[in-house]
Amino acid sequence: MAIDTAELPDPDDLPQDPEDLPPANLNPGWLSEDELAFVRGRLPIVYVEAVPVRVDGQGRVTEVGLLLRSTPEGVMTRALVSGRVRYGETVRDALFRHLENDLGPMAFPLIPASPVPAQVAEFFPLPGVSTYIDERQHAVALVYVVPVTGSCSPRQDALEMTWMTPDEALAAGTLAELVGGRGRLLRQALASVGC
Amino acid sequence: MAIDTAELPDPDDLPQDPEDLPPANLNPGWLSEDELAFVRGRLPIVYVEAVPVRVDGQGRVTEVGLLLRSTPEGVMTRALVSGRVRYGETVRDALFRHLENDLGPMAFPLIPASPVPAQVAEFFPLPGVSTYIDERQHAVALVYVVPVTGSCSPRQDALEMTWMTPDEALAAGTLAELVGGRGRLLRQALASVGC
Amino acid sequence: MAIDTAELPDPDDLPQDPEDLPPANLNPGWLSEDELAFVRGRLPIVYVEAVPVRVDGQGRVTEVGLLLRSTPEGVMTRALVSGRVRYGETVRDALFRHLENDLGPMAFPLIPASPVPAQVAEFFPLPGVSTYIDERQHAVALVYVVPVTGSCSPRQDALEMTWMTPDEALAAGTLAELVGGRGRLLRQALASVGC
Amino acid sequence: MAIDTAELPDPDDLPQDPEDLPPANLNPGWLSEDELAFVRGRLPIVYVEAVPVRVDGQGRVTEVGLLLRSTPEGVMTRALVSGRVRYGETVRDALFRHLENDLGPMAFPLIPASPVPAQVAEFFPLPGVSTYIDERQHAVALVYVVPVTGSCSPRQDALEMTWMTPDEALAAGTLAELVGGRGRLLRQALASVGC
Repeated sequence: MAIDTAELPDPDDLPQDPEDLPPANLNPGWLSEDELAFVRGRLPIVYVEAVPVRVDGQGRVTEVGLLLRSTPEGVMTRALVSGRVRYGETVRDALFRHLENDLGPMAFPLIPASPVPAQVAEFFPLPGVSTYIDERQHAVALVYVVPVTGSCSPRQDALEMTWMTPDEALAAGTLAELVGGRGRLLRQALASVGC
Repeated sequence: MAIDTAELPDPDDLPQDPEDLPPANLNPGWLSEDELAFVRGRLPIVYVEAVPVRVDGQGRVTEVGLLLRSTPEGVMTRALVSGRVRYGETVRDALFRHLENDLGPMAFPLIPASPVPAQVAEFFPLPGVSTYIDERQHAVALVYVVPVTGSCSPRQDALEMTWMTPDEALAAGTLAELVGGRGRLLRQALASVGC
Repeated sequence: MAIDTAELPDPDDLPQDPEDLPPANLNPGWLSEDELAFVRGRLPIVYVEAVPVRVDGQGRVTEVGLLLRSTPEGVMTRALVSGRVRYGETVRDALFRHLENDLGPMAFPLIPASPVPAQVAEFFPLPGVSTYIDERQHAVALVYVVPVTGSCSPRQDALEMTWMTPDEALAAGTLAELVGGRGRLLRQALASVGC
Repeated sequence: MAIDTAELPDPDDLPQDPEDLPPANLNPGWLSEDELAFVRGRLPIVYVEAVPVRVDGQGRVTEVGLLLRSTPEGVMTRALVSGRVRYGETVRDALFRHLENDLGPMAFPLIPASPVPAQVAEFFPLPGVSTYIDERQHAVALVYVVPVTGSCSPRQDALEMTWMTPDEALAAGTLAELVGGRGRLLRQALASVGC
């Protein structure tokens, strides 16, 4: 099974800044497209999902951040920060890496001290097993609510980062704009912080 | 039942800085010593307890802070940040107030976004009901692990704030220095953050 | 302050079965109406709230139980199992007592092994401090989701116990029927179990 | 990459009863030894770990169950219930399957209603990344405390299921008998239920 580094390892992980490119001494955690397709049909993949929030001085959530994206068909969708945990990488490091990838290096996320997630979400390729769908794979996602203290500059595949009040984020219209059933996931994550 | 504002409302709450004194327009949440003695024999009292910690950039706990106190008998004991929730006060505000009272105004605590505590500890005046003892009262304490980012200058009734590694804090010798069974509580709180 | 055992101690705690009556050797945790009125204006009161659920063999919540009540004005409302923690009583014992009071002795609730609640809800007499309102008092409620395995026969002040699917319980119309902002609380509690 | 069904898919998953054997219409979640070796060097593997407990009528943990095993070298070790989540399998179903495999069909486990684990443990093949070591793989384990209500008859590779009090389970001597750093994990899991 040849490892073809010219292939992007994961649609979620487009290597847009240099540190995200495969290193010269090839890390076994990097997977070619063939390899990724193979494992995606054989094993549940570990994911992290993060809901970026702003908090006040007493820790109350005042704003919720959602990424705005356009699908290839031109449909606008909302997204959480999300991505795969690599071989050899801790959950914390994966969370930090995906937050930095999606929100930019000046977001200054405060990763929670507890590794216990706000929620566990299971995505399956076929409907009916869970309320969460991911056509590409079976994924087990650890979901965290992460306060960010800096300024967010989303990557080019996201049009913008929209900040809204918790009530606006929980509105039925907003929840319906999240893909793969993640509206429910956002609702559950916000419930964990009292929203 | 006369309300005597000359009486300090709570041994835990010695008003050492002006904002902690009873306001001129008397807040019903202030209790005279007589009143406090009455309610302490009739109702469980809501408490917050906080374990101050230092975290690294990925949220891992690197240090645990314990207050060092001397009892009237000259015995050295370790303590958590701890105190009563007042009438009309939110749990978050009580947590912030007691952290500021015990660690000083430059501690800059990061109150967790989730109001769900790391643990619930029930203190009873008599042994046998719970492992936690408080001779003064029946207290239900919500226990939080709180990262602090600034410098701590403990109040005069604490001799110092000692920072130690999680493993040092979990050593049997350290746990035994906490009063009222709080060694177990510290162990449980640190377990919630993966220590 | 005379203790008048002829007075019922709490509208939530109507002693409908004998074991719930004040014992002959008067427990200091029993409060007369005067005493209760006094403490309710001085201290946050510790409450437990429980969402009864049915689970399948793998622990998935299949049904949610809500009490149906009629207010003195004849308005139908939905309610959770709810009540005060008494002096000297553990949170677990209070939870069990209120579940038995509200659902009958054959409900066979499975109190969770963890004392950490699914959510903490703070009720204040005046609006604006929290989304939860209780005109009688400032209450700090520990909220649990509790599987029940037996049959429920609600007390006379509840018209019936209605079982519904999680999605029915989460419907906006149902949530709006809960008093004191508890629709939000039900939503948060169900989120903690993945609904 | 040939799929060789004669190979056992996982040392943790020895198919000792017929329903645990690969089905005739080969499930893609079944992996040959070669395939398993491949994915174990490329991806974190999703695991569940369970601490079986006995609880009393109010949910308090009264006993903790540990499996006693003998290594090929004849060293006695303690183990938790543990195993991989398969492709297409929910975390709940994996938890139930491994509990039944390790404790027998009459254990009657009560899988918690909440999918949020008591703790997340990350095992790495090399020391230094985490306190948990698994020489075979990088595993992300969701750890649950699971009350069992029936009788346990451990599989042949376990010598017995030992029930002990929470304090006995937390004794340094007991914790040291668990492999891969799981003594710490047991301590953390028991902390989540107030022990």
